[in-house]
Amino acid sequence: MQEVVVIGGGFAGLRVVRGLAKSPVRVTLIDRANHHCFQPLLYQVATGSLSPGEISAPLRWALRKQPNAQVVLGEVEDFDVDKRYVYGTAVDGSPLKVPYDHLVVAAGARHSYFGNDQWEAHAPGLKTAADALELRHRIFNAFELANLAKDADERRRLLTFVVIGAGPTGVELAGQIVEIARRTLRREYRRFDPADTRTVLLDAAPIVIPGFDPKLSGRALRQLEDMGVEVRLGELVTDVDERGVTAGEHRYDAGTIVWAAGVQGSPLGATLAQAVGVAAERGGRIPVEDDFSLAGHPEIRIIGDLAATGLPGVAPVAMQQGVWTAKSIDAFERRTGAPRAFRYRNRGSMATIGRRRAVAHIGKLKLSGTIAWLAWLFVHLMYIIGFANRVLVVVRWSSAFIAGGRGERIITDTKPANVEADRAAS
Amino acid sequence: MQEVVVIGGGFAGLRVVRGLAKSPVRVTLIDRANHHCFQPLLYQVATGSLSPGEISAPLRWALRKQPNAQVVLGEVEDFDVDKRYVYGTAVDGSPLKVPYDHLVVAAGARHSYFGNDQWEAHAPGLKTAADALELRHRIFNAFELANLAKDADERRRLLTFVVIGAGPTGVELAGQIVEIARRTLRREYRRFDPADTRTVLLDAAPIVIPGFDPKLSGRALRQLEDMGVEVRLGELVTDVDERGVTAGEHRYDAGTIVWAAGVQGSPLGATLAQAVGVAAERGGRIPVEDDFSLAGHPEIRIIGDLAATGLPGVAPVAMQQGVWTAKSIDAFERRTGAPRAFRYRNRGSMATIGRRRAVAHIGKLKLSGTIAWLAWLFVHLMYIIGFANRVLVVVRWSSAFIAGGRGERIITDTKPANVEADRAAS
Repeated sequence: MQEVVVIGGGFAGLRVVRGLAKSPVRVTLIDRANHHCFQPLLYQVATGSLSPGEISAPLRWALRKQPNAQVVLGEVEDFDVDKRYVYGTAVDGSPLKVPYDHLVVAAGARHSYFGNDQWEAHAPGLKTAADALELRHRIFNAFELANLAKDADERRRLLTFVVIGAGPTGVELAGQIVEIARRTLRREYRRFDPADTRTVLLDAAPIVIPGFDPKLSGRALRQLEDMGVEVRLGELVTDVDERGVTAGEHRYDAGTIVWAAGVQGSPLGATLAQAVGVAAERGGRIPVEDDFSLAGHPEIRIIGDLAATGLPGVAPVAMQQGVWTAKSIDAFERRTGAPRAFRYRNRGSMATIGRRRAVAHIGKLKLSGTIAWLAWLFVHLMYIIGFANRVLVVVRWSSAFIAGGRGERIITDTKPANVEADRAAS
Repeated sequence: MQEVVVIGGGFAGLRVVRGLAKSPVRVTLIDRANHHCFQPLLYQVATGSLSPGEISAPLRWALRKQPNAQVVLGEVEDFDVDKRYVYGTAVDGSPLKVPYDHLVVAAGARHSYFGNDQWEAHAPGLKTAADALELRHRIFNAFELANLAKDADERRRLLTFVVIGAGPTGVELAGQIVEIARRTLRREYRRFDPADTRTVLLDAAPIVIPGFDPKLSGRALRQLEDMGVEVRLGELVTDVDERGVTAGEHRYDAGTIVWAAGVQGSPLGATLAQAVGVAAERGGRIPVEDDFSLAGHPEIRIIGDLAATGLPGVAPVAMQQGVWTAKSIDAFERRTGAPRAFRYRNRGSMATIGRRRAVAHIGKLKLSGTIAWLAWLFVHLMYIIGFANRVLVVVRWSSAFIAGGRGERIITDTKPANVEADRAAS
């Protein structure tokens, strides 16, 4: 039986594995996490509306009814593309060596600080459940620190949140932070009014959510400003430190900074590119053939955010590439002829900003406000894995939209990262 | 206005604060956590059924409608009982100095290893949300390590879980571990059958849940054994190391060890006892007068698990003491005469073991099996704070009882503690 090794259990990788359920192959899925994460809702974990479990499905659970698939938890580190082995370290620390006949690399992307990696400690990004919990910690802890602040300037700094990057994630985060300050925490502090919180959304581009239709970008901008987000466009961030953000001549003293400005392909892409002798593109993405294979290596495919295909790094692209790749491997093994060339079907794009505020572009329809928000709700609920999760998310959202409640505000660590940073700075 | 300082936002402390809502006093609640935790359900967080947020309420949220109360996040470290100050460190690292007219210490209890603190690294206990997440991590990771094990003995060790202490928490944990192995993880591993997991419940006492009626203890034992828990009574643990537990002549090689054997009062109790010149009792509990005040210090009260009152360390005792203490302070400040002497009303006791397995002692009724389990469900749901949480817990439990599902199995750290321990040992 031919061995298919899939690296990464995200939208792309998981679709490949499931798509091979009835194929005459054995599939090994390697991931360092034990769960598939519904990344488009991570910002809600970060802002205390959902728990990590509610937007995740254990990989083993997702594949429990697929006898030809196995899951290995570990980190892939290297490849032998001649002998066809994947090397790495399993979760127990033992060396991992897995042979393959087909290799699918769907290792995704991480934040990119454009060469300023020292910014990461002060402005973390949002790609994993652990990132979301760290960010949640920082956001809610900022209000605690503000409550203890000795002077007005320091309190003002601690109550300033800067989100860098006005793509969909940045827009969503900025909107949520405003809602936390104005609704969730109302009446909870005695020494200041959380509604005085300042939320700044910074981007070097002249518009928000640049990939969208200009009309919808404009509407999103108006909705953000209506909510009270201070949108600063055309400002390139030149420095990030533990006390704020500098963008050219502008300085934003802030207690919490979030990075939503850019991503780059997983370093695994570069490792693989080097092994086969191709050059990674800008952003660490790897150029692939039309069937996502590497030049000269039809048995190695790269899909999802790590592949340089010209398509945006969103879940529908990854899922469609995953489904197609499974069909392609199945056809190869059954010798039934390759499937029709991959073509991305854009079913629309949407971004949510806050309660009853969103924009959506579906076919020729350009929606904004409540109707776009309802469309967003519907689509995101449909795609969440697992019945219980879906019901839970409905309950959570009902509570949040009606009462401004956030059930997941608890801070479990005793020492949050921004306390440490502040201590070090003082 | 008189200042009341309450240390600890658990069942006892939170009831004092809320009970003083209409009193002519100002109340400061000091806690190191930002949330009240429903500790009786922590074991469900540890075993992946609930998220920490579902059994927690942010303290500020719980007190948002009480203008005479404020919350300070920080750690109390010392007392000046003459000048009436509490000293400590706030969550931002700044020194804390809070004056009081009335002091209520409800700092609770931690695990006690009976002088063998080195066991804690190998056999963590379960008192906080952070403890529960650590334990969840260890439990689910043990199956991953077993999946990677190279030989049968090591796999057998990794699939052995030892719970030390057969009180209500130990019994609940052992039952849940069996359900994880037999139901939740069914079909998820290819190299072994999770149902082969061995779950050992160890106690030096000759019976399980010793505080209960002997007839109910016996029924609980039978239900545990029916489920497949290996109950070993009359065995005193003599050593705990990273590869297992020794109890006299018996050795239990195990991958996961949980400590549910004993608690001791918070070290803050000893600090306070020393300041007023009283001696702490065994287990670190502090002797108090009938009104929970310290001898010679009517303005200082100790309630909950930290007070040596002869009553069991359970939530109903803490809550009733909290309510009574608020009345007592209110009467003192209004000069309306002290309330009637405190008397604990025992409304019953119950322990759950697994799905449709529990024991309950309510008045003269001694129940076990399904009916006791339904009573347990009802009572625990009634006492969970917050409407959304209650609905969420119902949804979670429905999914768990019908399908054996556990929605909160995700592991967010990349390096769980037991991997580290195993690496260090090898």
